[in-house]
Amino acid sequence: MMGVAAGGAGGGNGAAGRQPFGFADIREVGTLDVQAADRYFTENRDRHIAELKEFLSIASVSALPQHRGDIVRAAEWLAAALRRAGVPDVRIMETGGHPVVFGQWPVADHLPTALIYGHYDVQPVDPLDLWETPPFEPSLRDGRIYARGASDDKGALYVAVKAVEALSALDGRPPINLKFVFEGEEEIGSPALPEFFRRHAGLLKADVAVCADGGQWDADTPCLTVGSKGLAGIQIDVEGANSDLHSGVHGGGVQNPIHALVAILASMRGGDGRIQVEGFYDRVRDLTPEERADIARVPFDEEEYKRSLGVDALFGEAGYTTLERQWARPTLEVNGIWGGFQGEGVKTVLPSRAHAKITCRLVPDQDPDEIIRLLEDHVRRHTPAGVRVTVRAFPGSARPFLMPREHPALQAAGRVLAEVYGREPLVVRTGGTIPVAETFRSALGMWMVFFAFGDHDGNMHAPNEFMRLSSFDRGVRATYRYLHALAGCRPEELRAG
Amino acid sequence: MMGVAAGGAGGGNGAAGRQPFGFADIREVGTLDVQAADRYFTENRDRHIAELKEFLSIASVSALPQHRGDIVRAAEWLAAALRRAGVPDVRIMETGGHPVVFGQWPVADHLPTALIYGHYDVQPVDPLDLWETPPFEPSLRDGRIYARGASDDKGALYVAVKAVEALSALDGRPPINLKFVFEGEEEIGSPALPEFFRRHAGLLKADVAVCADGGQWDADTPCLTVGSKGLAGIQIDVEGANSDLHSGVHGGGVQNPIHALVAILASMRGGDGRIQVEGFYDRVRDLTPEERADIARVPFDEEEYKRSLGVDALFGEAGYTTLERQWARPTLEVNGIWGGFQGEGVKTVLPSRAHAKITCRLVPDQDPDEIIRLLEDHVRRHTPAGVRVTVRAFPGSARPFLMPREHPALQAAGRVLAEVYGREPLVVRTGGTIPVAETFRSALGMWMVFFAFGDHDGNMHAPNEFMRLSSFDRGVRATYRYLHALAGCRPEELRAG
Repeated sequence: MMGVAAGGAGGGNGAAGRQPFGFADIREVGTLDVQAADRYFTENRDRHIAELKEFLSIASVSALPQHRGDIVRAAEWLAAALRRAGVPDVRIMETGGHPVVFGQWPVADHLPTALIYGHYDVQPVDPLDLWETPPFEPSLRDGRIYARGASDDKGALYVAVKAVEALSALDGRPPINLKFVFEGEEEIGSPALPEFFRRHAGLLKADVAVCADGGQWDADTPCLTVGSKGLAGIQIDVEGANSDLHSGVHGGGVQNPIHALVAILASMRGGDGRIQVEGFYDRVRDLTPEERADIARVPFDEEEYKRSLGVDALFGEAGYTTLERQWARPTLEVNGIWGGFQGEGVKTVLPSRAHAKITCRLVPDQDPDEIIRLLEDHVRRHTPAGVRVTVRAFPGSARPFLMPREHPALQAAGRVLAEVYGREPLVVRTGGTIPVAETFRSALGMWMVFFAFGDHDGNMHAPNEFMRLSSFDRGVRATYRYLHALAGCRPEELRAG
Repeated sequence: MMGVAAGGAGGGNGAAGRQPFGFADIREVGTLDVQAADRYFTENRDRHIAELKEFLSIASVSALPQHRGDIVRAAEWLAAALRRAGVPDVRIMETGGHPVVFGQWPVADHLPTALIYGHYDVQPVDPLDLWETPPFEPSLRDGRIYARGASDDKGALYVAVKAVEALSALDGRPPINLKFVFEGEEEIGSPALPEFFRRHAGLLKADVAVCADGGQWDADTPCLTVGSKGLAGIQIDVEGANSDLHSGVHGGGVQNPIHALVAILASMRGGDGRIQVEGFYDRVRDLTPEERADIARVPFDEEEYKRSLGVDALFGEAGYTTLERQWARPTLEVNGIWGGFQGEGVKTVLPSRAHAKITCRLVPDQDPDEIIRLLEDHVRRHTPAGVRVTVRAFPGSARPFLMPREHPALQAAGRVLAEVYGREPLVVRTGGTIPVAETFRSALGMWMVFFAFGDHDGNMHAPNEFMRLSSFDRGVRATYRYLHALAGCRPEELRAG
């Protein structure tokens, strides 16, 4: 929490004094040969992209049972890719859910051990009709690779695999001990991971985790992600009469489950964007002036943002900037709603059921289990007479995560990014949830550094997901150097954080 | 407006004095031979039901374009059935939409002319998984015939066709001039009918319309339906960002179209059931004390009603009984809502679109076009920033209908029903919309008598629609007699109303 915060508070310091990571501090470690690495990546680039396209063509959607076979195929493909990259010990390990691809490459006991994390599962693809090319037929155009998972996370994960391949090819071995955990359930909240970590704590032991899921600020600006939000979600099922009813015969005399659901949902969020669920904000840590200054330092053009989304106004909790809302304030969003007749034309039905899916993004120190209880209580309090309401918590809750910025692995990441991009990284958070960061911390005692190169504007979770090939190129080079840089950290420093 | 109203206002009269139609007043007219008709219907019953099953097996869903061919097949089947029943002039006539099956059987100029109306189209069948037997494979069980359209309206319409067949077989000709209009768009609001009426006003000229769409109070109690509600409907389409968004990356900073839609819908109806659309009640005729007494006379067991629907509480506008709400107060119901992810599991998406379909049932003197304008205005006033909202009016608006009870065709219907059921009919309304009643009145200058035998508890517009075979049996006998009874009315009385 020094760096930006101190500079911002002191004021009047020069630009250099406000930077958290001094460009001049970069230490070259081990056998790092930047030119050789660059040549390697250039010469092997076509092959690397061809392999990535193969990986992206596997429809490993974790949320949908019918893709179970694709999940297994993706895990097998990835395990083979790790072996090809030189990792001597690669295993597909069963979990309570989809398998984990595990790998390890021990080098020497006195060197630090980093565990590289990523996920080979992807989000569902609907609405399919909005994709310009099929989501599982990777398409290269305009210097980008388009496919579901191109950025999140198959592409970003594959960057790390190819960096390790280069270490293997150029140096014969990595400069530190490496472990790998690539899971298949990130997009459904990693429900099996905590138990998997508990069961295999010894095998997974490392000094720090490196997350190959996420991205840089933009194609030219590096960033260090120090926090991610937690997640808690519910489905609300409202049941009225035992059958769909004729809205003429019964309308006006019987509660309509859609109206009941609408009343419940409307009660959850005010017109001012503030969440009205009783107790929702009780444990929310207020943003410090230093944190607000950090966020204010991040270039963000609200007009451009609106244009890019095609909206004429932004929206959110009063009293906060857009980035503060998205990064450091909790949210509640209805992800889906349905009930009654959705076809073409009119059906004058009074439906018997209505449903909604809601997820909340949480910030320190909100607790997902408590939030689910608060949501349940709120729904019960706001359920009108004449309907039965069921609230089901989704699996895959996650606690929020916030890393101390003075951690040496974060400092090393800042130095490498500054060198590769030629500019200091921004210190940012993600409004997204990377439950694994908190899980690594609580289950395995490791901090996690986000060091990934997915494209932030790459339509993650949406149609026409892509990754820039230039992001891939920079990613493999940066990751190669970062693994060298970590060799300069002392294991006990990494563990202490 | 005499009968019940006068009795109710006077108070203290005996039960007979409160009845609108005197059992003793029944006049037998023409060649009516009740016993012969009864024998005819008994002897031909198996054939009649077999034919009805054939008719019901045609999936003539008017709302769904893919059933266009079934609509044509149903029209052709019905035209052939009318010819078999003895109607000498039967035509399938084009409209702007689905065709009308027209027929006429002129007998003598001095006799009254009745136009029998019904519809051969049916509602969609979803949710299909709730049907115990397929909706278009008619199934006889427990003395009922189950199929989409069994009551509404193929079954009820076929009752009239078979009554005419009996007139043809027993009397050689009907006792009055008959015309037939069986349309194929009732379930989508009969959009083409007004223009069809205007174009063919001469051909369709008659003294009174008889509606073979609807039903009696229950299997043992006759009723006269004097009113039906109007209909006005809109679809609301809410658009936010130009693409589905990652709820973590963008959540909290961008308006969610589902939340916007929920806010709009929640603003339309209060927790007390009163509709909050500005101006909605301005033209609503208050119920008179006489009308309230009429409705109070109708036996209605609220506990049994709740049990039958499987709900623990009813719901509706404060200050009115359930039947008053359903029959004589306007309603606003969301018939369908959808947006975002509806699949299994979690998708943490901030959707780009959300939709709802709304229909209002109207009472005198609400005007559907004005109501649509009020709905549009309300939606615009309650649209939050950051989304674009489109409101589309559904075709098929209808004005409410309320017939004077002293009309001779209504009196005749009351007498026939009293005789066939052995008890006086209740004077009721339907909360449903039969736009055609108002259309006949305004376009062709005819009053419409509802004389139909669908089962009111027959799951119309819902899964497992049925008609009791006993209702069919009573219906054909009653209709046979009613057409005879109309021969006792003077044409000019019928037209004057």
